[in-house]
Amino acid sequence: MTGLALIAGTGALPRLLAEALSEPFVLAEMEGFASEVGGQAPLRFRIERLVPFLDHLLDRGVRRVVLAGAMRRPQIEPELFDARTATLVPRLVAAMQAGDDATLRAVIGIFEEWGFDVLGADAVAPDLVPGPGILTGQVSAADAADAARGAEIVAALGAVDVGQGAVVAQGLCLALETLPGTDAMLHFAARHGGLRPDPAGARGVAYKAPKPGQDRRVDLPAIGPDTVAAAAAGGLAGIAWQAGGVLVLERARTIAAAEASGLFLWSREP
Amino acid sequence: MTGLALIAGTGALPRLLAEALSEPFVLAEMEGFASEVGGQAPLRFRIERLVPFLDHLLDRGVRRVVLAGAMRRPQIEPELFDARTATLVPRLVAAMQAGDDATLRAVIGIFEEWGFDVLGADAVAPDLVPGPGILTGQVSAADAADAARGAEIVAALGAVDVGQGAVVAQGLCLALETLPGTDAMLHFAARHGGLRPDPAGARGVAYKAPKPGQDRRVDLPAIGPDTVAAAAAGGLAGIAWQAGGVLVLERARTIAAAEASGLFLWSREP
Repeated sequence: MTGLALIAGTGALPRLLAEALSEPFVLAEMEGFASEVGGQAPLRFRIERLVPFLDHLLDRGVRRVVLAGAMRRPQIEPELFDARTATLVPRLVAAMQAGDDATLRAVIGIFEEWGFDVLGADAVAPDLVPGPGILTGQVSAADAADAARGAEIVAALGAVDVGQGAVVAQGLCLALETLPGTDAMLHFAARHGGLRPDPAGARGVAYKAPKPGQDRRVDLPAIGPDTVAAAAAGGLAGIAWQAGGVLVLERARTIAAAEASGLFLWSREP
Repeated sequence: MTGLALIAGTGALPRLLAEALSEPFVLAEMEGFASEVGGQAPLRFRIERLVPFLDHLLDRGVRRVVLAGAMRRPQIEPELFDARTATLVPRLVAAMQAGDDATLRAVIGIFEEWGFDVLGADAVAPDLVPGPGILTGQVSAADAADAARGAEIVAALGAVDVGQGAVVAQGLCLALETLPGTDAMLHFAARHGGLRPDPAGARGVAYKAPKPGQDRRVDLPAIGPDTVAAAAAGGLAGIAWQAGGVLVLERARTIAAAEASGLFLWSREP
């Protein structure tokens, strides 16, 4: 087995992923995006010196990499480019102008051209990406209908490269995920929950899924204990997501929080 | 020219439409949904006695009708149905279960079967539905790009029968319209406006359009002075909409409010 590197950005995911890894790994961080992963001194690299960094990883025997966490819109200092990385600038700049997803695809493409296998979180820590099944609680027929409606809406949104979440109650869309993220969507749904047509009817479902065309190896949507708390504050019945397409961070704590609030957690077969 | 009836629901639109009408009209209101239209005593009807009401309109020489304002989810009392309206119950109930749009389509279909022409607001009060053009202010290239992105997103959302609005800034989607409506969307965008990547860059555009499959004769999206105030509070550059598909209520006040706040108003060719 060849060496593994974790390219770690900000947020909780890289740390949780590192804890779930069952083999030694090289930790790398982009300058300006320190991770929460402890336990070893990280290799630091700058995007302007990406090629020497890739060569260094190869020298250390690394052939497999996992990218995790946020590394968005790094500041670029043109005078720092080495000659070989400079040849990649047109590609990187074009990708950055096309958005975060395009940037990640470009970076993955470069890693692959250098001979690395780029792995997803599900490949190295399958417990973080649940397959189909109800993790806790009960899903009513009305909840299942709301989840199906949420899946339909999120797929339509994802096709225009927006959002990865929706809140649906009694068939009606209360909130959609946009740039401000999942928690902001759930707070909006909580603020307007009184619009449910039948106050005694289904309380609603938060649904999450990756974008249809998204590379599953990076930037999967995630839920965790905070998501459960925000969904509970909105009086929702539960959280459903596309099985195999969503990270569940801190699974034990997330399930305990859902049980304490009476919410279901449903990893739904797409 | 045959007689015209205005079937008026709640909200400001029926009153504004009545003020814009250049011919006499019969005013009708569904029981429980009194309108703000003054000037004459309304005919009141119940959905359970729709057929006798249609006959009565025909007796009065009415052959053209305009539906305006909200008449959503009336309470039905089964013992009040007359025999002929009762035969329509399966259609009406099926439509009500399929949503507000389906209900309106069913009601329009029944009016047409009885021989009425069902007209849109643009047919009787064209000033309420502006054609292409900039009503006030200046649209930058970045604003035009944000409006185009908004149009793309709203079309995708409309295809799954959700929302008629989006807020886009610097190409990124800040907020989407859901059940709580346009003002709630704009307040959400205002709360999260700090997420614009370039604080000195384009401030963003609120975009409105009808759903792609929607019957343009009823329930067009609308903007007015309140929309301008909410967009200004969010620091947006302006409001754009699909020309011919959006009602501008109180046009003079709406334009004056936009001028006072430095917002553009753009009726955009689709």
